Amino acid sequence: MRGVSIVGIGSTPFGRLEAEEDIVKLAVDACSDAIRDSGIKYSSIQALYLGNFVGERLAAQGALASVVGGRLGILGIPGTKVEGACASGGIAIREGFITVASGLYDFVLVVGVEKMSNMPIGDITAALATAGDEKYEMRTGLTFPGAFAMIMEEHMRSYGTSREQVAQVSIKNHQNGLNNPKAQFRRATNMDEVINSRFIAEPIRLFDCPPISDGAAAAILCPTELARDLPGKSVQILGSGHSTGPSTLTQMPDLTTFSASIQAAQQAYDMAGISAADVDVAEVHDCFTIAEIIATEDLGFFRKGEGGQAVESGETALDGLYPVNPSGGLIAKGHPVGATGLAQIYELVTQLRGTAVNQIAHPDIALAHNLGGAGAVATVHVLGRR
Amino acid sequence: MRGVSIVGIGSTPFGRLEAEEDIVKLAVDACSDAIRDSGIKYSSIQALYLGNFVGERLAAQGALASVVGGRLGILGIPGTKVEGACASGGIAIREGFITVASGLYDFVLVVGVEKMSNMPIGDITAALATAGDEKYEMRTGLTFPGAFAMIMEEHMRSYGTSREQVAQVSIKNHQNGLNNPKAQFRRATNMDEVINSRFIAEPIRLFDCPPISDGAAAAILCPTELARDLPGKSVQILGSGHSTGPSTLTQMPDLTTFSASIQAAQQAYDMAGISAADVDVAEVHDCFTIAEIIATEDLGFFRKGEGGQAVESGETALDGLYPVNPSGGLIAKGHPVGATGLAQIYELVTQLRGTAVNQIAHPDIALAHNLGGAGAVATVHVLGRR
Repeated sequence: MRGVSIVGIGSTPFGRLEAEEDIVKLAVDACSDAIRDSGIKYSSIQALYLGNFVGERLAAQGALASVVGGRLGILGIPGTKVEGACASGGIAIREGFITVASGLYDFVLVVGVEKMSNMPIGDITAALATAGDEKYEMRTGLTFPGAFAMIMEEHMRSYGTSREQVAQVSIKNHQNGLNNPKAQFRRATNMDEVINSRFIAEPIRLFDCPPISDGAAAAILCPTELARDLPGKSVQILGSGHSTGPSTLTQMPDLTTFSASIQAAQQAYDMAGISAADVDVAEVHDCFTIAEIIATEDLGFFRKGEGGQAVESGETALDGLYPVNPSGGLIAKGHPVGATGLAQIYELVTQLRGTAVNQIAHPDIALAHNLGGAGAVATVHVLGRR
Repeated sequence: MRGVSIVGIGSTPFGRLEAEEDIVKLAVDACSDAIRDSGIKYSSIQALYLGNFVGERLAAQGALASVVGGRLGILGIPGTKVEGACASGGIAIREGFITVASGLYDFVLVVGVEKMSNMPIGDITAALATAGDEKYEMRTGLTFPGAFAMIMEEHMRSYGTSREQVAQVSIKNHQNGLNNPKAQFRRATNMDEVINSRFIAEPIRLFDCPPISDGAAAAILCPTELARDLPGKSVQILGSGHSTGPSTLTQMPDLTTFSASIQAAQQAYDMAGISAADVDVAEVHDCFTIAEIIATEDLGFFRKGEGGQAVESGETALDGLYPVNPSGGLIAKGHPVGATGLAQIYELVTQLRGTAVNQIAHPDIALAHNLGGAGAVATVHVLGRR
């Protein structure tokens, strides 16, 4: 396996974009930015992996890899959409990484995209619920806010995690999003506002949730040996992990941990030859506030049950031991589902280049954690300066 | 790159199955058959690639790779849904092939599935139309029967292909499906019935079209060096090709040929070190009768414009020079969209094992051609006895 580097990144702003910003244009904009950033020619791209969750349903657009390739003018190459619910973007990076590492392709374009905001909220909720097991769980009427409400209850009950500790995730991530020009929400919040916002699924409140978002993010991958000849500052993918876990809550032996995250992290740490303690900055999948706390435990930043105290004591703040979601995370930056995994990469590459909006001091190792469903699938990527 | 073999195959029957045969159960049944056929243990499987087009929309089920993995009891491995419209199954094989050939995994399960029949026909047509470019073409009301109607008109105008020649594809494929226990239609048809069946999109009539189908098919891939230790008769993947073409008719310089098919075939032929003349039996993507004629030209079996005469003179019959769609093809076997690429592999493995229902005499080389949209994406795989 060859070393693989990220040599270009691109991202649209995230938010509720105009109807004429169709899903294909969002992806094309992010791809064009990434290609320009890399300094390679369009004709150098040998394959396209596109992460998207429910384009067929929310944007009436399937076969996105070839439609996006066509609008970019890079037909005649293999184009593949990959899907793993909210981890679709992370899977796109994973597949691109595999094909470059194996020597099959030199230059691969990976992109994630979702266009959600033009549909009625009921349709969006129903589309997102397809990430669960329809026959054995979602048919009962369960939604993902409902699933994570049970998970939050269980974490509070098992570990004494307080309502206020969970709320700190929202406060921190809103604060981080404040200066991020790509973020959907650029406004601060406070304890009073979070814990008094309206219930979505008790105990989860509005400010515990990410918004409905449109957006796309992209990256160019190539062998590390070729990255050195390109003009930009490249970042190496030191480790890649991808695993699956139960798709129903009833199959989970413990609602407060996701086995897929633990396994994907272990694979990525092993490949990179590092441990959690080496991570300088992380973007993790805060699809709800409680999910960030669980992620910081599953990834090994904190011991099981101590994620709530950690965020409360500032250990995941920009100047903490493990700065988490300096971009604002899904909660403030927005969560266009298929784009999220690539948006994490976008933020972390800027961190390792030293050009991030909320720049962490001299990071060497960065980690991206992308989760699908309530732990049904996870990817973890470890990046390093190179 | 290592040699890759297919060591197990499985398939459900294709047809309009009962509502309780949910999409996940279909995939699980095909996977279980393939695993049993291979003689490997469930715990040997290191990755799962699942081809599906519109499960989120027609079956309310996304994240299918992890949901199917969970019901099979093989969690804790990377699971990825891949999508390229009607070529989703072919792409699943392609991705499995890449990861085994590169040495990343030894045993990979690939499966294709679609569950379509429980929805109203208008919803199905709209879901299938997402394979085209929504903004620049499908929004006008174009459907795939409409697109292939223009393609058929143009082939008849350009090359003098007759209505009767096109109908011969339907007659041949229905005849081939007659004895196939997996086929949706097991009844013969005749010229009179085909050319007098009702119009779907003039000049395309009902008997020029595949049915709405439910079904799944699966295969187990492993390195050729490990295949020799397994009990079953294995088949080697000698070549793999995957390419993309225009997603709109307006971008096609010529409506009677699909550049993605030509490019994917050339890649597969080059990798296998063969030419079209070496192919002994083929399963091609007859999503409409005219599509089979175009495929036999694009794959190099016949010169451009001569595909109509070839089927009329019996060159694609079971005893012809290039037997095409001995399974009955999409038209008689059925077309559960995401499953089709794997169903082609299922048929061809039985042909190379010498156990097919419509067995061709001593085939050495078999070819599978899977198409998405009106040429937006294509995969070609060349299989050989080994």
